[in-house]
Amino acid sequence: MPNLNFHPAGRHFLQIPGPSPVPDRILRAISYPTIDHRGPEFGALGRQVLAGIRAIFKTQHPVVIYPASGTGAWEAALTNTMSPGDAVLMYETGHFASLWKKMAERLGLEPEFLGLPGIEGWRRGVQADLIEQRLQADSAHRIKAVCVVHNETSTGVTTDIAAVRRAIDRARHPALLMVDTISGLASADYRHDEWGVDVTVSGSQKGLMLPPGISFNALSPKALAASRVARLPKAFWAWDEIVEMNSTGYWPYTPNTNLLYGLAEAMDMILEEGLDNVFARHLRLGAACRQAVRAWGLEIQCVEEACHSPVLTGVMMPAGVDADRVRKLVYEHFNMSLGAGLGKLKGRMFRIGHLGECNDLTLMATLSGCEMGLGLAGVALQGSGVVAAMAHLQSTAQATARYPVE
Amino acid sequence: MPNLNFHPAGRHFLQIPGPSPVPDRILRAISYPTIDHRGPEFGALGRQVLAGIRAIFKTQHPVVIYPASGTGAWEAALTNTMSPGDAVLMYETGHFASLWKKMAERLGLEPEFLGLPGIEGWRRGVQADLIEQRLQADSAHRIKAVCVVHNETSTGVTTDIAAVRRAIDRARHPALLMVDTISGLASADYRHDEWGVDVTVSGSQKGLMLPPGISFNALSPKALAASRVARLPKAFWAWDEIVEMNSTGYWPYTPNTNLLYGLAEAMDMILEEGLDNVFARHLRLGAACRQAVRAWGLEIQCVEEACHSPVLTGVMMPAGVDADRVRKLVYEHFNMSLGAGLGKLKGRMFRIGHLGECNDLTLMATLSGCEMGLGLAGVALQGSGVVAAMAHLQSTAQATARYPVE
Amino acid sequence: MPNLNFHPAGRHFLQIPGPSPVPDRILRAISYPTIDHRGPEFGALGRQVLAGIRAIFKTQHPVVIYPASGTGAWEAALTNTMSPGDAVLMYETGHFASLWKKMAERLGLEPEFLGLPGIEGWRRGVQADLIEQRLQADSAHRIKAVCVVHNETSTGVTTDIAAVRRAIDRARHPALLMVDTISGLASADYRHDEWGVDVTVSGSQKGLMLPPGISFNALSPKALAASRVARLPKAFWAWDEIVEMNSTGYWPYTPNTNLLYGLAEAMDMILEEGLDNVFARHLRLGAACRQAVRAWGLEIQCVEEACHSPVLTGVMMPAGVDADRVRKLVYEHFNMSLGAGLGKLKGRMFRIGHLGECNDLTLMATLSGCEMGLGLAGVALQGSGVVAAMAHLQSTAQATARYPVE
Amino acid sequence: MPNLNFHPAGRHFLQIPGPSPVPDRILRAISYPTIDHRGPEFGALGRQVLAGIRAIFKTQHPVVIYPASGTGAWEAALTNTMSPGDAVLMYETGHFASLWKKMAERLGLEPEFLGLPGIEGWRRGVQADLIEQRLQADSAHRIKAVCVVHNETSTGVTTDIAAVRRAIDRARHPALLMVDTISGLASADYRHDEWGVDVTVSGSQKGLMLPPGISFNALSPKALAASRVARLPKAFWAWDEIVEMNSTGYWPYTPNTNLLYGLAEAMDMILEEGLDNVFARHLRLGAACRQAVRAWGLEIQCVEEACHSPVLTGVMMPAGVDADRVRKLVYEHFNMSLGAGLGKLKGRMFRIGHLGECNDLTLMATLSGCEMGLGLAGVALQGSGVVAAMAHLQSTAQATARYPVE
Repeated sequence: MPNLNFHPAGRHFLQIPGPSPVPDRILRAISYPTIDHRGPEFGALGRQVLAGIRAIFKTQHPVVIYPASGTGAWEAALTNTMSPGDAVLMYETGHFASLWKKMAERLGLEPEFLGLPGIEGWRRGVQADLIEQRLQADSAHRIKAVCVVHNETSTGVTTDIAAVRRAIDRARHPALLMVDTISGLASADYRHDEWGVDVTVSGSQKGLMLPPGISFNALSPKALAASRVARLPKAFWAWDEIVEMNSTGYWPYTPNTNLLYGLAEAMDMILEEGLDNVFARHLRLGAACRQAVRAWGLEIQCVEEACHSPVLTGVMMPAGVDADRVRKLVYEHFNMSLGAGLGKLKGRMFRIGHLGECNDLTLMATLSGCEMGLGLAGVALQGSGVVAAMAHLQSTAQATARYPVE
Repeated sequence: MPNLNFHPAGRHFLQIPGPSPVPDRILRAISYPTIDHRGPEFGALGRQVLAGIRAIFKTQHPVVIYPASGTGAWEAALTNTMSPGDAVLMYETGHFASLWKKMAERLGLEPEFLGLPGIEGWRRGVQADLIEQRLQADSAHRIKAVCVVHNETSTGVTTDIAAVRRAIDRARHPALLMVDTISGLASADYRHDEWGVDVTVSGSQKGLMLPPGISFNALSPKALAASRVARLPKAFWAWDEIVEMNSTGYWPYTPNTNLLYGLAEAMDMILEEGLDNVFARHLRLGAACRQAVRAWGLEIQCVEEACHSPVLTGVMMPAGVDADRVRKLVYEHFNMSLGAGLGKLKGRMFRIGHLGECNDLTLMATLSGCEMGLGLAGVALQGSGVVAAMAHLQSTAQATARYPVE
Repeated sequence: MPNLNFHPAGRHFLQIPGPSPVPDRILRAISYPTIDHRGPEFGALGRQVLAGIRAIFKTQHPVVIYPASGTGAWEAALTNTMSPGDAVLMYETGHFASLWKKMAERLGLEPEFLGLPGIEGWRRGVQADLIEQRLQADSAHRIKAVCVVHNETSTGVTTDIAAVRRAIDRARHPALLMVDTISGLASADYRHDEWGVDVTVSGSQKGLMLPPGISFNALSPKALAASRVARLPKAFWAWDEIVEMNSTGYWPYTPNTNLLYGLAEAMDMILEEGLDNVFARHLRLGAACRQAVRAWGLEIQCVEEACHSPVLTGVMMPAGVDADRVRKLVYEHFNMSLGAGLGKLKGRMFRIGHLGECNDLTLMATLSGCEMGLGLAGVALQGSGVVAAMAHLQSTAQATARYPVE
Repeated sequence: MPNLNFHPAGRHFLQIPGPSPVPDRILRAISYPTIDHRGPEFGALGRQVLAGIRAIFKTQHPVVIYPASGTGAWEAALTNTMSPGDAVLMYETGHFASLWKKMAERLGLEPEFLGLPGIEGWRRGVQADLIEQRLQADSAHRIKAVCVVHNETSTGVTTDIAAVRRAIDRARHPALLMVDTISGLASADYRHDEWGVDVTVSGSQKGLMLPPGISFNALSPKALAASRVARLPKAFWAWDEIVEMNSTGYWPYTPNTNLLYGLAEAMDMILEEGLDNVFARHLRLGAACRQAVRAWGLEIQCVEEACHSPVLTGVMMPAGVDADRVRKLVYEHFNMSLGAGLGKLKGRMFRIGHLGECNDLTLMATLSGCEMGLGLAGVALQGSGVVAAMAHLQSTAQATARYPVE
């Protein structure tokens, strides 16, 4: 294998909004020898991860685990529930929402793209009232699904999914609610059942702290019913065989065994900390990160206070500053990867990931690297974001070390 | 993660025809920390594996690497090249050929299934003359593709792909030739370009010695041309964006980074040994295995001498013996997993995998476990297969240890 | 790190009598990140391994764990209990007994070496009556310690330690009883307290299945008392500070943290199987191995039926056959390491290790490699040892797989 | 193995002055399967590490690698060169110098302890003139060795070893010069031959970035000559057999194979960066750390500008502040381990490790954790050390990423 150590010394800080740094425990778990996916050991593993993943999604219903990366789970959500030419209402929150819409087109659907003009829509969560209005206008119920992104990885904006659900309900519209929380799951609060989501799409390489390679569809009974009559061709993604085989802990085809080891370990880690404690940790880290950006005098991409992502923060550059040059300086001098601005925001912002296994000192390292990199790039800063973030973290710090009783 | 050690002691012998045992080197490689799939390190990795995989397939043309397990690559071959309702000529060599046909139906194609009746077709390779006859009858060229399995994992029978190519050519038929060598690649001789294959489908967890989770489509220019007009919906599997992005070493969506580490390491291992030496090693192990079966007085599933798989051997049970009971005894008493009979052969045979990193002593351990398990099951054996296999291996043994010059 | 893959393909069979193959679980455990050896996590680890190791030695008294390989633990046993010029009665069971005696000389002690002449003493366990006679003659009690090897790694002969204890007691002699069971511990039955041993010396890389690098002194109250007056200089090896610090789970100097992770994992594995089941497994494997040697018509180095080691078997070569040439052929052709004859037996025998994580099929692989290697060397064999060993294993096989209740 | 994750989330920052954090590459290297320490693969490994370690010590003479932790290498230096009752001149630079002296006493030597009174001697390097005076007074040449610590781990003070050499030379005294650079090697500049050192003692778990468990004696011809007549008893530590066996790449007894894998990998990493670049990196990190301490308005333990350690920094607490309480707050709230004050400095200082694989952002994380922990402890700080350190790092930053030519 090639030497992938492009920096001479020390740990690389992978502070993109996914893949997030994979903890040692999980890297060791995925290096357990591959087993027979039809043998009894696999059954024990399969039953454990299939039960555990429901707790992560907060659902009582089946969660399909695909041996494929997240883009595939987008496709699965659509091909299992839709028929050729179906209208789907999608909402432009950012680059990934746009890619999902493009996929819907490729699959022969007719997506309609709601949203605010320009980059304004990329700075706010889904405006549920726009969805309500559109659905009310659709008295013929041509629209078969409403598709929104819960945590836009390209912007650092989250959406109030419960509000979208209420909007659909107020419109008394039968469309399915499909939600992408690929980058939100297991770092940002998410409740598949309580929020009335029909299909939730997610992936492994973000809050679950795994390498990329597995992805998810969490289902509702209504989604399962829709899948029985949907006519888009599907085989690999088809829920029916998988859900049936999963009842005993197995898959109809070869699953991604070694990443499932990692998933089991990730669930152990999340269980040890407590899922709600995980959410609280990321809320606190996100708040500290924003304190830093404000102290620098820079703009945060997300402009709605209620919608700041606990997973990542988008930092807008002043006019004339190329965000990608800042990222390159940081990469070359401080051994850290930051996320690029995507699509409409290319070169105008960079993204700081603070998801997954991030903790206080990792965030401080990250913000230090940003502050020094901005300095190298000649960006005039109003003050030290690092000091502001420390103030927030110190004032909210809690003793978290556990001392096991012997 | 759950304790998956269901046996109290010692190494488990995973002698199914895939997933094959993953060597330590590869397990360590996949535990390298996940990196930014848009960063420079990833580009170096991507370019290396994309170049190396062509050498494995013996092709000058693009090989698409999917972050998905093998079944997905079957779907990719069909959705990229076919349009709804297209006729495809498939050939029943065994259980996996049947599953591929079932998938073609699910995708809205019209597969026609050639083959010999009963299990006779499962004991021989593809009869190329049947394909030739059928194509000659198709003067309207309704058939858009000929789909065959190179190494039937369910039976231990290989097919002469060059002969199928010649059959198509003799019929002067424009159908694409699509070949599944999921379990053959990198253990059994395979030549994508020389044999004139248009799409080769393969996976990671067999001869490449990786965990499951990545799969392949090797292409021909003719296949690429077909993909530009094919109308089955496709997005995740679509070749166009992947091939374009691959030119710089990247993927349009998140690739399966950690398994790509393993792939790079597997390529190093194969290069160190030499690909043709790998093929020769498996031919010799397969021959030794068959010597054992013959010495036991049992029937080998494959009845054509030219078609014995170097990857696995199917062992038929005498009347009245439940092959799955033998497998269970072997699993419980000797800590070894054997492959089950599938489909039409359920309970009538077991399969011995000798692919991937198998070597002489691993095969001898395997055959010993089989011989003792058959004994525990009360199967009357004519003689010691273990002794016969040793005779073959000893008489053909070569010193292979290398002593590096200091 | 250098490429240490000197064989082109497949698993290496490390069938020397130690280091034994290190199981994957332990290799993963030792790759856990190193922690602060003064922090709370280390204390939890230290207390666990210090408690667990007593169970392995079957003692209620302290066991000192050294961050050093086994030879160091020999030195520790002597320097903690002896004073310059002290006489020690040692017994020549083989090469390692001879090395221990040589060490005693280097340390300024006066070892007396009992034993049978020539290689006859290397084919039998300690003759306890010789010890009794010698001690009875030592009415002045000049002899301060009796030092014997429990499981001679160079010969495959074990000694009845309880009989040695009885011999000392019958002679009413106050000498300490010191026993080396470096290669026996955790594969061969051993009982520090019940057998009245004062100092037991052992190491990590044999029955405990760890890499080399940690070693042990199990103590008795009498040994501890002796250490308080002994005058050989000692610092690193000194029991006093270590035993005192160990009471809280820590060491006076930096311990070998990562190997302690492995030790904790090894203890888990042994506990899962049950220590007495581990002993029974090795007794059965040893018996099967000897069946093979007898079927070949070769001589077993150990000639006392009661003393056959369950850990390794020494195989004598017929006149004119160079055992090292056989070993080299096996290494080069079959990717297996066997143990060499040592000292007086150099070139006359090879040693088969079946300790640690060895199981039925690993032993069968090993015996197959030996049988084929003997064949390549032109050694005339009376019959197939492999067949004989299979007969033993099959007739004594038990279902051992566990199926956890969900 | 026990669950050693005492913190709920994220990476632990192990910022003690050793063991230093072990890089992933090395953890993977030590998990390579253990091999036969008498086989050809081992020879290749042994020859590589034995050659490489000379480059690390900058010596043309033998370096003995012990399968034991660092304290053992202290003992080895003394027992190989000294005879009972020999006088040795040692110098009190701190806690570890004191422990080495205590060891000399235990071994039956007569150490004389030079140094400045109280903790003043712990804040400065060795005063070479004191040594010169003492040696000149020893006209009978009773003193057989001068023993000094190059990098005092307990204080963060380094000593000018070349100056000590010159002092001995000026006194025309034949005493051996023995130097402990356990925590300095491979992070702080060190030149065994050029500085005329006779025995250098070092260990693995500091600048070499390995787990603890191997240690070193670098020799001079004069030291080797002394070892031939020295009369302290020695066996495990004896240079003679090891140096002889090492000539072919092997050891007289079982070496610590898996840590040698790690050592080979560490050498690769150091070679990739360049040893002198490694030294420069640590000088820069040390300077940044001291800028932080000064900005806080706290005292640095080392008061001589020329003697600041590039490996660690000792931070004195204001009167009334318990340094161990600060450390505990940092551990519990910020998942970081700091070094305690030892011996005379217990509770009065904490130590920040910035050795081994430390880089800019790891140091910034560390300093942030210290600054917040000091805040939680209520220590009044003059300013932000974090800001001061960033200023230093930013102004001296260089692009270090390499982009390999394809």
